[in-house]
Amino acid sequence: MQALIDAVLQGDERAVARACRVIDDRAPSFRELLRGLYACTGRASVIGVTGTGGAGKSSLVDALVGRLRAEGKGVGVLAVDPSSPFTGGAILGDRVRMQRHFEDTGVFIRSIASRGAQGGLSRSAREQSFVLDAAGYDVILVETLGVGQDELEVSEWVDSTVLVCAPGMGDEVQALKSGVLEIADVFVVNKADRPGSDAIAADLEQRVSLGRAVRARPALQHGHGAFVGLAAAPDDERWEPPIVKCVAVRDEGTPELLQAIAGHRAWLASTAGQARSLARQRMASKRLLQTLLAERVAAAHAAEIDLLAERVARRELDPYEACERIHTG
Amino acid sequence: MQALIDAVLQGDERAVARACRVIDDRAPSFRELLRGLYACTGRASVIGVTGTGGAGKSSLVDALVGRLRAEGKGVGVLAVDPSSPFTGGAILGDRVRMQRHFEDTGVFIRSIASRGAQGGLSRSAREQSFVLDAAGYDVILVETLGVGQDELEVSEWVDSTVLVCAPGMGDEVQALKSGVLEIADVFVVNKADRPGSDAIAADLEQRVSLGRAVRARPALQHGHGAFVGLAAAPDDERWEPPIVKCVAVRDEGTPELLQAIAGHRAWLASTAGQARSLARQRMASKRLLQTLLAERVAAAHAAEIDLLAERVARRELDPYEACERIHTG
Repeated sequence: MQALIDAVLQGDERAVARACRVIDDRAPSFRELLRGLYACTGRASVIGVTGTGGAGKSSLVDALVGRLRAEGKGVGVLAVDPSSPFTGGAILGDRVRMQRHFEDTGVFIRSIASRGAQGGLSRSAREQSFVLDAAGYDVILVETLGVGQDELEVSEWVDSTVLVCAPGMGDEVQALKSGVLEIADVFVVNKADRPGSDAIAADLEQRVSLGRAVRARPALQHGHGAFVGLAAAPDDERWEPPIVKCVAVRDEGTPELLQAIAGHRAWLASTAGQARSLARQRMASKRLLQTLLAERVAAAHAAEIDLLAERVARRELDPYEACERIHTG
Repeated sequence: MQALIDAVLQGDERAVARACRVIDDRAPSFRELLRGLYACTGRASVIGVTGTGGAGKSSLVDALVGRLRAEGKGVGVLAVDPSSPFTGGAILGDRVRMQRHFEDTGVFIRSIASRGAQGGLSRSAREQSFVLDAAGYDVILVETLGVGQDELEVSEWVDSTVLVCAPGMGDEVQALKSGVLEIADVFVVNKADRPGSDAIAADLEQRVSLGRAVRARPALQHGHGAFVGLAAAPDDERWEPPIVKCVAVRDEGTPELLQAIAGHRAWLASTAGQARSLARQRMASKRLLQTLLAERVAAAHAAEIDLLAERVARRELDPYEACERIHTG
């Protein structure tokens, strides 16, 4: 295992792939592996790319990889696809487009399957990001499909979350309904050459300025009677997500997007940014610890749980009573 | 609490609403409440309605409620919206359309917010379905937004899962990519009056018959040399999901959909269906027990976990080592 850890730390691509498989398979040695790598993480810029299916996330990731490679940066891509609970396999689908990057040794691409584990998608992606980080990749792009619990969780441990919207995805209200707007550090309106994209951008702009107005309110309340306009209430403590228009398939807007992400990364280095970053890491670490602990306890009581679950399924016993019968000492 | 339990069992609508709030708020008494209700559950038909945003699930649920009410059935609707991790509130959005049912005492409608809890969405919906079930509602419709972990979990404990597709939702391949096709007991192609709906239906049809061919294969292998066609290999053990075309906003296709759901419910009463049903209940019960146990242990070690999470966030300690330092006895 130490040999694998050393090879990963030297950036050996085959070792990175093997380490990712060890994590995916929950091989007995995966904890030892991660323990050996964890201290060497925290250097890469980890960027989440999320949004509903069909918004063109894969194209955008493809374009970003091309740009980052042109800058000479090493890039890791973790594509998180909700997978079949039956096959346990991820479907690559339109990722075929990224073929050109598969032969580039400066790019590491991996699809992550969920296997139906609760919260497992985000966790597996996070652990594999430790591997890529320790291996020295400069930027790690974590692409998630759809909007849901997994996406919220991914946004807790990445440095910057890019939320991708696009016209023609059904009602625009769907994007608002999703409740994921708040996790965005940067908004992308993709397919910006299509009708409807201006409306989406205006919609997002309105929401961002609504947030600004809400934040400005305390200043108004505590002012000395003078009118305090929105523009007069600068708020350096807060990051205000910029909105970037892109046509990912034509690689348009991607330099501006990278600039916006770099701006967010720079903000993360500020006092307010550092505090926010540490708070998120604390929350993500707490969640991971709880999960690890839950797994340990469930494994220690597996037979007992199976017997009780059978009785609950037959409605002989309620789950709350059943849980109380498990003695953890 | 016993008064609340009794009132729920008598179908008192205000008591049902209060009981749902107790669960949502994780009020101290929620376990006692659920223990009092659990033995009286298992009578309602619980139907999951899932699919990507914009497929018209809300319209479909609205139409189904209308039809079921016309049959004199009591209907509960649990709308599971991924909510903002910041506000903790569910956005009703286009649920306004269902307004007409809000005044009908035979219909109980509730939105469920996730509050960022891991797997909490599905669990809260499940526990609230216990309340509605015990209160005597005949049919409980659980509407989930999007495709992800929560949807997979909901499909574990509902009786029948209706997967809604529609044309114009971006590439059709998105639906296939989602990996949720296998959870469908009934497929709905909604907005069937729009171009592209036939292609989706044909696509689904092909996938269903692919599954049939795969199941027929063992029969071919074990045959006595004679040709065994697909049609000659009936497979009563398996439920084959029917595909129903609907135009939900015009209430077209909904009688056929209810028939398809009733067909699935009838199959669940067969030997194979009962076995499948028990297996799912067993899995769902096991998951709930594990979650309850995890909560109990996390609560018992909360302060310890907080201290360790802080050190993990600062990268002074890796999470795997940190977890091992927690002694559960």
